[in-house]
Amino acid sequence: MAINIDNFFNSQVRKSKMSDFQDLDHVDGLSISTTSANLYNNSRDDMVMFYFRDGANFASVYTQSKIISENIKWNLNLRNKRIKALVVNTRNANAFTGKKGYQSLKELAEEFSIQLTAKQQKDEEKPEKIKPNQILFGCTGTIGEIFPVEKIKKSIPDLITKVKYTQNKYIWMKAALGIMTTDLSPKIAMEECKIGNIDIKIYGVAKGSGMVFPNMATTLGYIFTDANLSSGVLQKLLKKNIETTFNAISCDGDTSTNDMVSIFSTAKAKNYLIKNINDSKLINFDKALHNVLLNLAKRIASDGEGASKFITVNVNNSKTLEEAKTIAFSIANSPLVKTAIGGEDPNWGRIVMAIGKANININLNKLAIKFGSITIIDKGQLLINYNEQEVAEYMKNKKIDLSIDIGTGKKSFSAYTMDLTKKYIEINADYRT
Amino acid sequence: MAINIDNFFNSQVRKSKMSDFQDLDHVDGLSISTTSANLYNNSRDDMVMFYFRDGANFASVYTQSKIISENIKWNLNLRNKRIKALVVNTRNANAFTGKKGYQSLKELAEEFSIQLTAKQQKDEEKPEKIKPNQILFGCTGTIGEIFPVEKIKKSIPDLITKVKYTQNKYIWMKAALGIMTTDLSPKIAMEECKIGNIDIKIYGVAKGSGMVFPNMATTLGYIFTDANLSSGVLQKLLKKNIETTFNAISCDGDTSTNDMVSIFSTAKAKNYLIKNINDSKLINFDKALHNVLLNLAKRIASDGEGASKFITVNVNNSKTLEEAKTIAFSIANSPLVKTAIGGEDPNWGRIVMAIGKANININLNKLAIKFGSITIIDKGQLLINYNEQEVAEYMKNKKIDLSIDIGTGKKSFSAYTMDLTKKYIEINADYRT
Repeated sequence: MAINIDNFFNSQVRKSKMSDFQDLDHVDGLSISTTSANLYNNSRDDMVMFYFRDGANFASVYTQSKIISENIKWNLNLRNKRIKALVVNTRNANAFTGKKGYQSLKELAEEFSIQLTAKQQKDEEKPEKIKPNQILFGCTGTIGEIFPVEKIKKSIPDLITKVKYTQNKYIWMKAALGIMTTDLSPKIAMEECKIGNIDIKIYGVAKGSGMVFPNMATTLGYIFTDANLSSGVLQKLLKKNIETTFNAISCDGDTSTNDMVSIFSTAKAKNYLIKNINDSKLINFDKALHNVLLNLAKRIASDGEGASKFITVNVNNSKTLEEAKTIAFSIANSPLVKTAIGGEDPNWGRIVMAIGKANININLNKLAIKFGSITIIDKGQLLINYNEQEVAEYMKNKKIDLSIDIGTGKKSFSAYTMDLTKKYIEINADYRT
Repeated sequence: MAINIDNFFNSQVRKSKMSDFQDLDHVDGLSISTTSANLYNNSRDDMVMFYFRDGANFASVYTQSKIISENIKWNLNLRNKRIKALVVNTRNANAFTGKKGYQSLKELAEEFSIQLTAKQQKDEEKPEKIKPNQILFGCTGTIGEIFPVEKIKKSIPDLITKVKYTQNKYIWMKAALGIMTTDLSPKIAMEECKIGNIDIKIYGVAKGSGMVFPNMATTLGYIFTDANLSSGVLQKLLKKNIETTFNAISCDGDTSTNDMVSIFSTAKAKNYLIKNINDSKLINFDKALHNVLLNLAKRIASDGEGASKFITVNVNNSKTLEEAKTIAFSIANSPLVKTAIGGEDPNWGRIVMAIGKANININLNKLAIKFGSITIIDKGQLLINYNEQEVAEYMKNKKIDLSIDIGTGKKSFSAYTMDLTKKYIEINADYRT
């Protein structure tokens, strides 16, 4: 159960090794530290602090659930557009914990503000007073258990002592591991781009697994950039790019109380502040941000609980984007499609079933279905020379692409998911024990 | 794989014995016969004929899927209100089989009409000519495979030879077994009631399993009564009672191309024909029909693929019926709720999650949650004396009742489902092999 970095990559159950990951290093203005508050009653890191010594602009998108966790409430109540730290804990979602859960965060924010202000006074030439409403919280874990505020409070000095002013791949990996719950693999991603002639970094960490559905269930995603962008621009960029990335993944159709994807900009790259979303200097940044988000989102889908295969569902040539999306998710969320793919069964009949139940009027005579590059259905007919053996071979791949051509328009949407296996049941039947 | 009655109740994998079932006997005007067309390449019965020698009024409800099987198209095209036979085959859904699939049914209907007309001429004093459009079809099985019309055609003489003019529990059981696919247990149910002072029987068989969701996925349900009721009355009674029975069950959120629930009345009980749905003589019949449908629906849910527990989700005191239904299904369809229950984990946090994702505005301060008779949440708060051990004990039951009180109105809805287990994955990963 312990998932500290020192033993992580030696463990048999993990799917990845350190060299599989990109080389994230330092984002100027950001310090990362991790520690164990012993929330799991073992030595694993369960607390991660992202500290912006000179502050950061930020933007967030949150769960669509009608029941939201106390930390999401806290974050939504912050009126401050400039943040000093993001603090993430695992094991406890602080959801359905009522006023007491909220009060606990208030206490923690006050404690962080005191201790971080003290640190500023010790380290900085121009120390700033850090306010409680400059602390953002991410929580993930079990719903409805009492929030372990005292344990977390005790971990604050260690988180602060461990702050270093340069970061490397090792600390990013520790952060990615520190925010994991049942994930098998940590998730980090990066892109570099230019704003004008200035080099810009966009780094990200995420956790997923379990209840991953559009609207981003049990997903935490945190993006860090040294670009100088207003909060308004960050919000628009995030909202725009989340639709085809984090909101395009689906693992089991469930949605969490705690989902949160945020972007932080430290402004240390010193480009001229961009306040207008239509500024042409943003074009490359926009693309790079999309790539980081998509990279993280795909890692979440491919690491969905118990997943053995990564599935891309492309719905093309639909009348509207909404229809393409509905059909893509109807397929991506179908337990019968997902178990068939897990069983390497090219059961295209279940794809047809899932298209049918999407409740979209389609013209069967125009429908085409491909597995990878192999056409199975064309103009609503099973191909005469359909060779099931060939498709069965294709199903052995770790990455499965399904392409559905609706033939009634020009809109496309891709959803990302994974297969449904016995391992999923195993993980979820005894999650809390 | 062979599931003929002679070995069925001896088999280790089956969950039931003959004496677990009600004693269905004879419905006057109905004859049942079963045979094997060798569609599974073993000796199991895969063809069932329900033959009404003097015809029957009938009504049907069908799948809500936008892609429907060829037999559903056939049935919808029938203009005849009086039916002579219902023919059901398993193994092949005759869905996504195009014009050829439809043409096959036309050929079969013609063949049945010829051979049944010959039978009438041999057996009846006043033989009637049976027309192809008096044959109704039920199909269930794999989508997209060529419909095995020749094999089925060869089985017709045997189906007709086996017709007997009195029925007993043994033949009802053979019919229930003959329409099964991955079901572990056959489904039969009966009620008796009075219309005026005349005794009326309502008998039913069903199959479910697999893609069972509201809108009745891969569900076949057939109700037979000797009452004398018009087709219009049958249609209204069926539509009304399906909402809280077959449309209240959910196994995995998938919906089939082939769902069909029908009711047939032979009129042999000789009550005065009832043509008006508001006729007070219908009150008892209405209740009894509801009971038969609910009994069959619950059997389907509790036999959902891989199920080890039967789950009832009661949502009470909601503002509207629609809201109660949405919340009930959000819980009943949640893989995380279903795996937790399979794991006997009283993980009420996942119930809260599922309520939240239903996207209904609720007042948390009024929410109450019970497992069985044990209150866990009251007025939106975890009970102070909440004893997890007590609830963990309750979770060991085979029947689990979840009760959610929304506290904003007076509407209630109950959904029925089962837990999600490894067995589900096993069945569905290699369904076709």
